[in-house]
Amino acid sequence: MDLRERFKQVRADSKRFCEPLEVEDYCLQAMANTSPPKWHLAHTSWFFETFVLKTFARDYQPFHPAFEVLFNSYYNGIGAQHPRPERGLLSRPVLSEVLAYRQHVDQQVEQMLDANDHPQYARIAELVELGTHHEQQHQELFFTDIKYSLARNPLYPAYSGEPAPGGGASRPLTWLEHPGGTVDVGHRGEGFCFDNELPAHPVLLQAFALADRLVTCGEYLAFIDDAGYQRPELWLSDGWQQVCEQDWRAPLYWLGEGRDWQEYTLYGLLPLDLERPVAHVNAYEADAYARWAEARLPSEFEWEAVASGHELQGQFADSGDWRPAVATAKEDTQLHGGLWEWTSSAYSPYPGYQAAEGAVGEYNGKFMANQLVLRGGSCVSSRSQLRNSYRNFFYPPDRWQFSGIRLAQWR
Amino acid sequence: MDLRERFKQVRADSKRFCEPLEVEDYCLQAMANTSPPKWHLAHTSWFFETFVLKTFARDYQPFHPAFEVLFNSYYNGIGAQHPRPERGLLSRPVLSEVLAYRQHVDQQVEQMLDANDHPQYARIAELVELGTHHEQQHQELFFTDIKYSLARNPLYPAYSGEPAPGGGASRPLTWLEHPGGTVDVGHRGEGFCFDNELPAHPVLLQAFALADRLVTCGEYLAFIDDAGYQRPELWLSDGWQQVCEQDWRAPLYWLGEGRDWQEYTLYGLLPLDLERPVAHVNAYEADAYARWAEARLPSEFEWEAVASGHELQGQFADSGDWRPAVATAKEDTQLHGGLWEWTSSAYSPYPGYQAAEGAVGEYNGKFMANQLVLRGGSCVSSRSQLRNSYRNFFYPPDRWQFSGIRLAQWR
Amino acid sequence: MDLRERFKQVRADSKRFCEPLEVEDYCLQAMANTSPPKWHLAHTSWFFETFVLKTFARDYQPFHPAFEVLFNSYYNGIGAQHPRPERGLLSRPVLSEVLAYRQHVDQQVEQMLDANDHPQYARIAELVELGTHHEQQHQELFFTDIKYSLARNPLYPAYSGEPAPGGGASRPLTWLEHPGGTVDVGHRGEGFCFDNELPAHPVLLQAFALADRLVTCGEYLAFIDDAGYQRPELWLSDGWQQVCEQDWRAPLYWLGEGRDWQEYTLYGLLPLDLERPVAHVNAYEADAYARWAEARLPSEFEWEAVASGHELQGQFADSGDWRPAVATAKEDTQLHGGLWEWTSSAYSPYPGYQAAEGAVGEYNGKFMANQLVLRGGSCVSSRSQLRNSYRNFFYPPDRWQFSGIRLAQWR
Amino acid sequence: MDLRERFKQVRADSKRFCEPLEVEDYCLQAMANTSPPKWHLAHTSWFFETFVLKTFARDYQPFHPAFEVLFNSYYNGIGAQHPRPERGLLSRPVLSEVLAYRQHVDQQVEQMLDANDHPQYARIAELVELGTHHEQQHQELFFTDIKYSLARNPLYPAYSGEPAPGGGASRPLTWLEHPGGTVDVGHRGEGFCFDNELPAHPVLLQAFALADRLVTCGEYLAFIDDAGYQRPELWLSDGWQQVCEQDWRAPLYWLGEGRDWQEYTLYGLLPLDLERPVAHVNAYEADAYARWAEARLPSEFEWEAVASGHELQGQFADSGDWRPAVATAKEDTQLHGGLWEWTSSAYSPYPGYQAAEGAVGEYNGKFMANQLVLRGGSCVSSRSQLRNSYRNFFYPPDRWQFSGIRLAQWR
Repeated sequence: MDLRERFKQVRADSKRFCEPLEVEDYCLQAMANTSPPKWHLAHTSWFFETFVLKTFARDYQPFHPAFEVLFNSYYNGIGAQHPRPERGLLSRPVLSEVLAYRQHVDQQVEQMLDANDHPQYARIAELVELGTHHEQQHQELFFTDIKYSLARNPLYPAYSGEPAPGGGASRPLTWLEHPGGTVDVGHRGEGFCFDNELPAHPVLLQAFALADRLVTCGEYLAFIDDAGYQRPELWLSDGWQQVCEQDWRAPLYWLGEGRDWQEYTLYGLLPLDLERPVAHVNAYEADAYARWAEARLPSEFEWEAVASGHELQGQFADSGDWRPAVATAKEDTQLHGGLWEWTSSAYSPYPGYQAAEGAVGEYNGKFMANQLVLRGGSCVSSRSQLRNSYRNFFYPPDRWQFSGIRLAQWR
Repeated sequence: MDLRERFKQVRADSKRFCEPLEVEDYCLQAMANTSPPKWHLAHTSWFFETFVLKTFARDYQPFHPAFEVLFNSYYNGIGAQHPRPERGLLSRPVLSEVLAYRQHVDQQVEQMLDANDHPQYARIAELVELGTHHEQQHQELFFTDIKYSLARNPLYPAYSGEPAPGGGASRPLTWLEHPGGTVDVGHRGEGFCFDNELPAHPVLLQAFALADRLVTCGEYLAFIDDAGYQRPELWLSDGWQQVCEQDWRAPLYWLGEGRDWQEYTLYGLLPLDLERPVAHVNAYEADAYARWAEARLPSEFEWEAVASGHELQGQFADSGDWRPAVATAKEDTQLHGGLWEWTSSAYSPYPGYQAAEGAVGEYNGKFMANQLVLRGGSCVSSRSQLRNSYRNFFYPPDRWQFSGIRLAQWR
Repeated sequence: MDLRERFKQVRADSKRFCEPLEVEDYCLQAMANTSPPKWHLAHTSWFFETFVLKTFARDYQPFHPAFEVLFNSYYNGIGAQHPRPERGLLSRPVLSEVLAYRQHVDQQVEQMLDANDHPQYARIAELVELGTHHEQQHQELFFTDIKYSLARNPLYPAYSGEPAPGGGASRPLTWLEHPGGTVDVGHRGEGFCFDNELPAHPVLLQAFALADRLVTCGEYLAFIDDAGYQRPELWLSDGWQQVCEQDWRAPLYWLGEGRDWQEYTLYGLLPLDLERPVAHVNAYEADAYARWAEARLPSEFEWEAVASGHELQGQFADSGDWRPAVATAKEDTQLHGGLWEWTSSAYSPYPGYQAAEGAVGEYNGKFMANQLVLRGGSCVSSRSQLRNSYRNFFYPPDRWQFSGIRLAQWR
Repeated sequence: MDLRERFKQVRADSKRFCEPLEVEDYCLQAMANTSPPKWHLAHTSWFFETFVLKTFARDYQPFHPAFEVLFNSYYNGIGAQHPRPERGLLSRPVLSEVLAYRQHVDQQVEQMLDANDHPQYARIAELVELGTHHEQQHQELFFTDIKYSLARNPLYPAYSGEPAPGGGASRPLTWLEHPGGTVDVGHRGEGFCFDNELPAHPVLLQAFALADRLVTCGEYLAFIDDAGYQRPELWLSDGWQQVCEQDWRAPLYWLGEGRDWQEYTLYGLLPLDLERPVAHVNAYEADAYARWAEARLPSEFEWEAVASGHELQGQFADSGDWRPAVATAKEDTQLHGGLWEWTSSAYSPYPGYQAAEGAVGEYNGKFMANQLVLRGGSCVSSRSQLRNSYRNFFYPPDRWQFSGIRLAQWR
C-alpha cells in the first residue's frame, strides 16, 4: 500500500474504532497507565504535527498553542508534558475540537505527501510512516484502555453493541519442536521496523519446544482450582507479594469467584468461555501457570525462531470478534494475533542498538528497563503493524493488555 | 412559596446551573471530595426516589435497579455505595439518561404532591421539603466542585461565558461590638431547619467584637508579603505541617506567585481583584491570617448573636456575579452570602440533639467530628436555603469551598 | 514541696521508671507518634538546657553541639528538628552518653537553684517548674510509648517483672447528677498551671449526669458481642471509615477475637480482666460505645464541674499497679487517675487565651486544632502533675494512650 | 579448608565484624530492605537450625519456639515470617540471648560434623556448606545495612574507629578487548556453587571491550558537573522518574552538593576521594553515566568471559580498608573485590535451571524477576565466597550496596 493510502486508512481506523462510544466515554481514564479515547485521538495527531508539520511544513501555524504540552506523552526532547494521571480531567478541548484538530493535521500532512516537492521528502515520508505505526499502537491501547475503564463501571457497559460471536472447541495441545543452535533474530530487509528490532544478529539457542497454541481458560481454571493462587511455591517472589497484597484470585476480568464464572469483555459481561485463550494475565500469572504445568515461558528468541517459519496470519482487529478466538484447526498455532504472548526476555537493546536521533529517539530505547517482551500481536492489533521481529513490552505486573500464555519446555 | 412550587423551582435550578457546561464536563471529578455534575443531578433525584417514592408511592417502579447503589452518597442505612473517588468513572448512565431519571422522579413526586391524598402526606411533605434543601446544598457543591475540576485544566476554561462584572472599592473595616452575656442560639419557630440547628438553647458569651466585613484580597496579600506563609509562629501546628508538605504560598486559586497575581474564577483566569473578599482559604489560613492581624476567628455563637440582628440579605446565587462582591456600602456587613465564614467552633451536637430516625438521620449527626462550622452562605448559595441558625461544616484543611475570613476580637 | 526538691524528684523518677528496661529497648519507636525511652530522657534534659541554661546560665557550654537539633521536639522558635519518625534510628548518642547529659544538666540547674543569686531568678524558677511538669508529661508518654513498642514484638515482653496485682469486682454504675447553670472553669489561685487552663471563666451548662465510674471491659465486651464494630449507625462517619479500613474489632491491646480474650499489659499478655476499666480506646470507640449505651461523652466542662467537688485522689503512677484499677468502693468515682477520660470537647483556647511569650509559647496553643480534650489523669500519671483544670489532648483516632470512657446523659 | 574449619571461621567472622558496634546499634533498621545486625546474627543461625539441626539432629530441642517465625527471612516453605519492616522493633531477644542462640547452634552443628556418623552426612555437609556461603552473604549485607543505618544519624558515626587508609592516584583507563564468539558460562567442576550458576552452557557474544578498571569518583563528578542529573536524554525512563521524584543529584552517600563534596564512609564523613571508584550508584545512575561516556554496561556474560582469564584476587573484606581501593597498578583490573559491578543482564534462569528441592530451593529462583545481575564482589565480600560464575542481584533502583560502574563498548 502506498504511504498516502496507508496514512488515510490508519487515520480513518482511529475514528472508526471510536464509533461505538458515547461522548461521555471519551474522557474516561481509570488509572494512570490508561489514556482516554479523546487523548489517544489528539496525541496521535500531535505526533504528526510535532515531528512532521512543525519541523518541515512552511509557515505552519499550530492548531492550538497549548496542545504541544497537553498532548505530549513523554517526549522530554519536545518539552513539558501534562501529567499523565490527569489526562482524564481534560474535558476541554471537547470532542468536536479534537476532531477538528485531526482534520487540520490530516489536511496538512496529505498536502505535503501529495505535493511531494519538499527537499527533505524522504525524511518526511519516513516520519509519516513511523507515525502510522505509532497510531496503530495507540489503536491497540485504545481498546485495552477503554476496556479497562468501562470495566470499572458496575453497569459493565459493552463497547460493542454487536452480538458476541460464538467460539467452538479448542483442540488438544501438542508441541512444536526446535533443535536449537544459532538462529538469526531481528529485522532484515526493506520494510518498516522500529529501532528496537535492530540490528539483526545471531543468537545461540538450546533445544526446546513451544506449545502449538495458547493456554485456554479451561486449562487456567484447573490451575485456579488446584489452589494456584494460594501456593507461594508456584510464584516468583515479586508476584506472590502482589497476589497477597491485592488478593488476586483470577485473571483481571473474571468475576464470580468460582460460582458461575463470568468474564467482562468488549461485549459486556459474558459467561466464561473455557475454550478461548486465557487473557489479561500478567507475567507473574503466566509464569506461575507455566511452573504449575511443568513448563516455562519461552524467550523472545525462541518465539521468533519458531514464528519465522510461519506466515503472519491470525485473528486481528478486523476479525469481527473482540475476544481471542479458539484454536480449532491443527494449523492454527495462534502465533500471530489472538493474544500477545509473555516471554521470559527482559526488554533490552540488541547488540549495537542505536536509538534514532532527536526526540523521536525517545520512542523505544529509554523504556528498556524493568519490562518484558511480548510477541505476536492480539485480536485488537492491526495486521499491518506486525512483524515476526516486532517487540512489544510491558511491566510484569500489568494485566490490562490482551496478553496470554504460550508454554515452552527444554528438550 | 408553596411546597410544590418550591420543589419545581429547586429542581429547575439544578438544570439551569448546569446549562453553560459541555457534555464532556459532566463527568469531571478532580479529587475524591468533589463530585461530577452528572452525579449531583442523579444523586439529588435519588434522594427523592429513595426517601419519598420508594417509601410511600404505591407500586413504585425504580427507574433503574443499579441506581440505588450508584447514586447513594453515604447512607449506610440504605445499603452499599459506589466508591466516592470513582464517581468520575461513571460515563454511563450518559447525561440524557440522567436527565430522563430526573424527569421520571419529578413527575412522580409532583403527582404525589398534586394528589395530596396519601395517608402519610405530612411526612411526605416534610421529606420533600428536606429534599429541596438537600438539593440546594448540592447546587452549591456543584459550583465548588466544577470550579475545582475546571481549574485543573491548563486551559483554565470559564464556567460562565458572560463577561465578569466589575467590583468597586472596599470600605474601611470597623468593628461590630457585642457586650456578651447569655444569648439564644439555634432554630426557633415554624419554618424548616436541619436537625443540627436544634434544640435552640442559651449560651454564655464574653464581650467581643466582629469585623463589619470580610477580609479582602488586598489585606490578605499584605499577610503574604509579610512572609505569612513562611513564619511558623503564625500557624496552628497541623496547618504548618500542610503548608510545608504542600508548599502553599497563597489561596487555592491564586496564580503567579507575586508577579502579577491572577485568580482562577468561574469566568476563567482574571487579574486578582484586591478589593474583593479573599476566597478559598482553609481554616488554617484563616486562623493564621487572624493571628497576624492581632485578631481571631469568631465562634459560631458569636456570629449568630450578631447576625440575629441583621436581615438575611446579601449576595446569593442569583446575583449575576459568580465572585464574592466588594463591600462598598456601610450597611453591607457581608454577614449573609458572599463567602462562607470560618468559625473557631467544632461542629458538635447541641445539648439534647437527636438525629432524625432512620437512614435520613445520617444527614448530619454522623459528621460531627473533626470539622468546623462555617456560617452565613456564599455567592453560590441560594437565599432560600439559608437561615441565621444554619450550620455549614467542612474540615480545617479544605480549600475548595467559597470560604472566607471574618475577624473577631475579645473586648 | 520546694522547687529544688521537686526538680530532683522528677528527674529521678524518669530514670527510675526506665529501670526495668534492657539497653536494647531504649531506641524502640514503633510509630511516628511514639518516642524511644532514650529520646524522652534526652529531650526532657534538652528542655532545661534550652530554656534555662542556654538562656540564663553564665558562660554555659552546651553538652553537645548537635543536641539542639537532635532533641528538639517541635519548637520552631528554637530551630530545626530531627525528623520525628526517625528518633528510633538514633542509636548514638548511646544510653550512657544520654545519662551523662542528664547528669550534666542536673548539676547545672541545681547549682543555679542553690545559688539563688541570679537577677532573673523568679523567671528561672518559673521555667524550672514548667520543666518538671513537662517532664512528668513525658514520663506518662514513656509508659504509653514503651507499651506500644513492646506490644509489636510477638514475644509480648513485659515491662514490669513484678507479678500483676489482682483486681476485684466492679460495683454497679450509678449517676452523679448536676443541675446545670453557670459554673466556673479553668485554673484559679496560686499554684502552677499550663497556659491552656487560663483564663478561668464562667460557662453555662444544661442539666446533666455523669456516670460515677468508668466503663469496664465486661461492659465493653457486651458492646462487641452486640456487633458494635459491625453497625455503622453507632459510629461517627470518620470513625466508621477507620473501623473498615483498619478492620478494628476490639480495643488496641485485646487479642483473641472472642475466643479467650487476652490483653497485652505492662505485665505482658494476661487474660482479659472484665472488671477493670476498658483502656486504649479512641474517641470514636468511646463515642460509639456511648451511643450504644444510650448515653454520650461528657463535655470537658461538665467533667470539671463535677470533679471540682472531689478531692484529687485515685490511682496514679505510684500505685504499684500498671493497669487501671477496679472501682470497688462506692466513693471511688475514678475521676482522677486510672484512665484519661475522652470528652466531647474540641481542644480550643479559653476566651482571652494568651500563649506564653517566645518559643516556650509553642507548648500548647499551636496544637489547638483537630484534637479532643481528655480529663482526669491515668494510672501512669504522677499525682503532682494533675489538677481539676488540667487539659490533656489527643486526636480522635489515637488509641495508644491510657484512655477510657466515662458516660454522660442529658437530664 | 575443611568444612568444619570453614564453618568455625565463617561463624567467627560474623561476630568479629560486629565488634566495633555499640549494643544500641544492633537493632538499627533504617529501611525495610535493610536488617539490624542482631537479626543477621540470629537469622544465619536460624538457617543452620532450620535446615540442618531440625531436619537431621536426633531429639533436637529448638532454642526458642518463637524463633522459627521471628528469624525466618522469606522461606514460605518453612512457614510464617515476622514482617520484614519490623525487624528493627525486636529489642527482644536482647543481644546476649542472640549470642547464646549462636553458641547453641554452633555446638550442635560442630558436634554433628565431628561425629560424622549420621546416615545422611553427605546431605548435612552440603547444607552446612551452603549455610556458610549464606552467612557470608549476610556478612556483606551486614556492612551495607549498618552503613545505611548509621548514615541516617546526623552525627554520622563511624563504624570503624581505625584511621581511614590513604589511597593514591588512579591510572588511566584502557580497554580489554574480546573478539566475541561462543564462550562457556556458569559453574563447572567440583567446588561449591549456588543453583543459579547452573547449568554451565555456551553463549554467543559479539566482539566487545571492557574497561580495565572501575569508574572513579572524579570521572563521575565530571558527569555531575556536565548536568548529568538534569538531562533526561541520558536516562532510562524509569530512572529519570526517580531522579525527579527523589531529587537525586549525586550518589547515595555524597554530601555537599558541589561545594566541598564529602562522602559518608564506614570511617564516618570524609572529604570525597576523587581517585577511588564511585560507589553506591544504582543501575540507572550506572547506565546514565555510561551513556554520557559513550559506552554501555557489560552483560554478565561479557564480564564472565573476560574475568575467566583472571585469577580471583582483589580487595576483599580482609583488606584493612572499608572503602573501594584505587586502581594504581596496570595489572589491577578491579574485576574482583572493590565494588560489585552492575551488568545489563536481567537476573534470569540459565537454560535448564532447576531450583533445589524443598524450602531451601527458595534461595534463588523465586527472585528471578525485575532484578539485574552484579558481578565480581566488593571490599566487604569475603574472598572465599566468590567465584567467576557468582551472580549477585539487586533491583535497578537500589543504591545501598557497594556497587560501582564498569564500562563496556561494542567493537
